[in-house]
Amino acid sequence: MTIFIVLDLMATIAFAVSGALAAMNKRFDPFGVGIIAIVTAIGGGTLRDMLIGRTPVGWMQDLNYLYMIFIGLGMALIFRHKLQKLRKTFFLFDTIGLGLFTITGVEIGINAGLNPIICIMLGTMSASFGGVLRDVLCNEVPVIFHREIYALASLIGGSFFLLLLKTGWDQDIIYVLTASIVISIRLLAVKYNWSLPALRLPQE
Amino acid sequence: MTIFIVLDLMATIAFAVSGALAAMNKRFDPFGVGIIAIVTAIGGGTLRDMLIGRTPVGWMQDLNYLYMIFIGLGMALIFRHKLQKLRKTFFLFDTIGLGLFTITGVEIGINAGLNPIICIMLGTMSASFGGVLRDVLCNEVPVIFHREIYALASLIGGSFFLLLLKTGWDQDIIYVLTASIVISIRLLAVKYNWSLPALRLPQE
Amino acid sequence: MTIFIVLDLMATIAFAVSGALAAMNKRFDPFGVGIIAIVTAIGGGTLRDMLIGRTPVGWMQDLNYLYMIFIGLGMALIFRHKLQKLRKTFFLFDTIGLGLFTITGVEIGINAGLNPIICIMLGTMSASFGGVLRDVLCNEVPVIFHREIYALASLIGGSFFLLLLKTGWDQDIIYVLTASIVISIRLLAVKYNWSLPALRLPQE
Repeated sequence: MTIFIVLDLMATIAFAVSGALAAMNKRFDPFGVGIIAIVTAIGGGTLRDMLIGRTPVGWMQDLNYLYMIFIGLGMALIFRHKLQKLRKTFFLFDTIGLGLFTITGVEIGINAGLNPIICIMLGTMSASFGGVLRDVLCNEVPVIFHREIYALASLIGGSFFLLLLKTGWDQDIIYVLTASIVISIRLLAVKYNWSLPALRLPQE
Repeated sequence: MTIFIVLDLMATIAFAVSGALAAMNKRFDPFGVGIIAIVTAIGGGTLRDMLIGRTPVGWMQDLNYLYMIFIGLGMALIFRHKLQKLRKTFFLFDTIGLGLFTITGVEIGINAGLNPIICIMLGTMSASFGGVLRDVLCNEVPVIFHREIYALASLIGGSFFLLLLKTGWDQDIIYVLTASIVISIRLLAVKYNWSLPALRLPQE
Repeated sequence: MTIFIVLDLMATIAFAVSGALAAMNKRFDPFGVGIIAIVTAIGGGTLRDMLIGRTPVGWMQDLNYLYMIFIGLGMALIFRHKLQKLRKTFFLFDTIGLGLFTITGVEIGINAGLNPIICIMLGTMSASFGGVLRDVLCNEVPVIFHREIYALASLIGGSFFLLLLKTGWDQDIIYVLTASIVISIRLLAVKYNWSLPALRLPQE
């Protein structure tokens, strides 16, 4: 499924751009920007692979991910003065990445023979943990813990993916449906400003 | 030893509650609160398992840990207005958890054939690193680095555990003795306000 | 090559001292200072080992690293009032450590049969990631992302190392040359105050 691979690589680019932008926002030097871009793009998948013992982790064995990150990094550096205008484009890539990395993560869990609940967690982790690491390394509170519906879209999509697999439908159709669910939830959440309420403790 | 398993699961609940409280204190949304609860409860054991190559890590293979976390999470959400009153109860659970996770960690090190010093480190890491990750993800300086005697109780207990194993006594007795040492040190430290002095550099 | 092993262990001491100083600067207690010293000295190598599945990780199998850390820790505690005067000595050790850990990291990558680009990344990670973890645990923005040329020296040295390996020269000579390159770049960068420019986003 060529379109799938193309989108997966585009998602890696998008995550790298998101990391590079966050790092430039903190005024890191080019080296720091590069590290943050790499960590954002591969952090989620790396943690997933380490947790299940799939080592050397993915990006060490398939250099295409690294090349995509370099492309994303170059794009962020070159177009950084115009990125405000391109924001919608990158938001779209990032959202596509959320959908696709969810699917990859769940599938790798299934192949490792893990329980469905664990597989869904692996999917969400693959899709969102790169962003958590990006924020930790930038010394910020991870944005997905207190703003926007992001990882939740991945969690819901991952659950649907497992349900759809039971139907016996064609795998490509299931991929497209799952990605559509994740992407739709995320797009709607941003368009209509959906967010979960903050939980807080009573003041003493 | 049924009582032991029951206490281990209760400890997982206590750690999850501790994570959920910290996250609500930062006003995270329900999703963020869930992630922090999970990371606090399983973070120490997960790092230990990854370091020694015991993968997929423990909680991926025994779902009971996850169920306990969900219970802890539910308790934190439901009782969050009354948790001030229940603080002593949860402190007790957390302290029991410290003792039990120390034992589990050291034992797993022994089973992996590692040097006793490394085993003690694994025990302390299992018992205290979930709290470190909780604080890092909340963008706080980890509390165990500069306040209270916490991980030190685990370190001392782990050392005694290894000594006791040489006596050839019944394993259950050794478990109970070790847990008692860790729990006693922690309880006394809190009751009498023991703490290690801060180290500081001379002002220039 | 005895001199090499001696320098490697001295580098571990230097990294432990660097961690202990950072922790004392944050007024951590002795336990916290110990943890930060350990993490700074072994963090980079530990991540490298976990990523490629070389577990139990190195320091769990060769206790010499731990003993060096204890020496570094003791030195930092005893001499902390005089460390200002010894700063140049420790800077030199740290720089030697940067050079040597780069070589170790790249070599381990080669032995694992990984692609040269990945090997260079592993070298840089081994040499610099302990410092990143140190800063994250101290709740600071990692210094190597926005100040000084540090990891870049390791990156350049690692690349030269791979090129030199193709010459077929004696391995000891290649080791010495590589370490010299890393150390020279780092020393020159500090002496002449070289740094990479911060990248920043245009103000909106």
